[in-house]
Amino acid sequence: MKIIAFANGDDVALGVVTSATHFVEVAEVAPELPSDLIGILEREHALAHLREVTAGVRGNRPLSSVVLKPFISRPNAIWALALNFKSHIAETGLQTNPEYPHLFLRTAASFVGAGEPILAPRPSIAKAFDYEGELAVVIGKSGRYVPVDEALGYVAGYTCLNEGSVREYQTHNRQFGLGKNFEGSGAYGPWLMTPDEFGDPATHSVLTRINGVVRQRAPLDDMLLSVAQVVSYLSQGYCLRPGDIIAMGTPGALPPEPDDLEGKDLSRQFGPFPTPGLVHMRPGDLVEIEIDGLGVLRNPVILDA
Amino acid sequence: MKIIAFANGDDVALGVVTSATHFVEVAEVAPELPSDLIGILEREHALAHLREVTAGVRGNRPLSSVVLKPFISRPNAIWALALNFKSHIAETGLQTNPEYPHLFLRTAASFVGAGEPILAPRPSIAKAFDYEGELAVVIGKSGRYVPVDEALGYVAGYTCLNEGSVREYQTHNRQFGLGKNFEGSGAYGPWLMTPDEFGDPATHSVLTRINGVVRQRAPLDDMLLSVAQVVSYLSQGYCLRPGDIIAMGTPGALPPEPDDLEGKDLSRQFGPFPTPGLVHMRPGDLVEIEIDGLGVLRNPVILDA
Repeated sequence: MKIIAFANGDDVALGVVTSATHFVEVAEVAPELPSDLIGILEREHALAHLREVTAGVRGNRPLSSVVLKPFISRPNAIWALALNFKSHIAETGLQTNPEYPHLFLRTAASFVGAGEPILAPRPSIAKAFDYEGELAVVIGKSGRYVPVDEALGYVAGYTCLNEGSVREYQTHNRQFGLGKNFEGSGAYGPWLMTPDEFGDPATHSVLTRINGVVRQRAPLDDMLLSVAQVVSYLSQGYCLRPGDIIAMGTPGALPPEPDDLEGKDLSRQFGPFPTPGLVHMRPGDLVEIEIDGLGVLRNPVILDA
Repeated sequence: MKIIAFANGDDVALGVVTSATHFVEVAEVAPELPSDLIGILEREHALAHLREVTAGVRGNRPLSSVVLKPFISRPNAIWALALNFKSHIAETGLQTNPEYPHLFLRTAASFVGAGEPILAPRPSIAKAFDYEGELAVVIGKSGRYVPVDEALGYVAGYTCLNEGSVREYQTHNRQFGLGKNFEGSGAYGPWLMTPDEFGDPATHSVLTRINGVVRQRAPLDDMLLSVAQVVSYLSQGYCLRPGDIIAMGTPGALPPEPDDLEGKDLSRQFGPFPTPGLVHMRPGDLVEIEIDGLGVLRNPVILDA
């Protein structure tokens, strides 16, 4: 099952995707369910009920007719991992503890939905505005002290996430702080795909395209710590809550193709780790994060006015 | 004006403190106002209206009759500063960039209200569970690109905050992550005091008592970066929102008194920076954070079961 959120006047409504092009509104097929996804996740059997009532349904609304929105309103926590891909550790030359996830938090305000514009900082504020293509995990039920081998049972589903980062601010001090939390600097979507449809995260891969050029591509089994390990670790100190999001970290840049002048031009990079094949996100760009078997998160970049 | 939140059955209600011992419920004197503080802050003139309708009112409810709760439900962001007091920088020997605030985020779930028990991790999980007495700032209105000299105009008020930290987890990796976000490991309160009553933060001081022994005491002008500087910095990348909280950092430990055997016994410390005068928080302790002219945040410590 693929669940979307979409703009409905001033509100956000939920839908279930029924084909490559169409969806059905949750309020239409299951008006008895809460109107937000956290509410549905919190109610026992509600997700199974939604699957039942949408099975075989032919969606009456075209996906192209709506603006998608972030599908988790006001999560208690959006966790993100630094340096969880071996290729990204190699390109930055940074240290991380291989035993424990390298965790920080982002605010809900730092994310937009699929198709919505990502905001690039004014050049007078910062220029090293970078994509980070990632798998994101959404927690489906509360849990504490969860063993690794039971951890995937706490996952409601998966989505694509662009963990957009402002490098100048990220390196102002040792904690990433504001650099990982610029207004509308990241995105997730296009939908939440449930585990029965997605399967084992380690068998998938993630890629990032800027204006059609592939800039990151990595199998998800290149992660230092797995989804199950991170979910279990968090539950040692924190009560997992329905709607919590965990962004699993980003891979390194791909080496530039011979004719890729932009990817080879390190003089156009303003961040602390000039890297062949890396380009910053700039107004006018189209950024795509794709996870095979899940879908594509596609966002234009505009100037944050 | 001093605004509290208190448990009201399964809900949380707001009140205004009218004397050292009594308060009046907001829903009683101003039923037209939203029932949560973010809603009041978002509505223009609502705070001024609340001040008017409670002026001279004799509160009919004893403070001692209610359980206080965190007064901001579901904030978009709870920012916190590391290493913002010169005495704390000195005792840890850690580096910080003096030009930029050293920022990280905490979740709402990591805080309880005044009087509620703070949760100490199971000893098998962690032992270095430390208090951090701090001034916290609550944002009152939206703002972006706010100059330093206008920044205090965005502050709705101040409160005491215990930024409880689990040192073993905080040092698992370079980002503090879970170590600053254990379930119910911190607290804030007892109330939001508005700036007209609090005055200039730099003229106040903060102290921390464990079981009656003063463990931290510092003037708030020992901060590296002021409230106004931090509010202005955040607004460069992030749209300040009513109800955002900023914990301004903690001072160093006081040197132990001659007869303070516990404070001198470094063998009882499990954290990365054994410090004379520091003691960990343990189940059974009573922790108090006091800001002069504001009030005392008092919490018992119990085991996280």
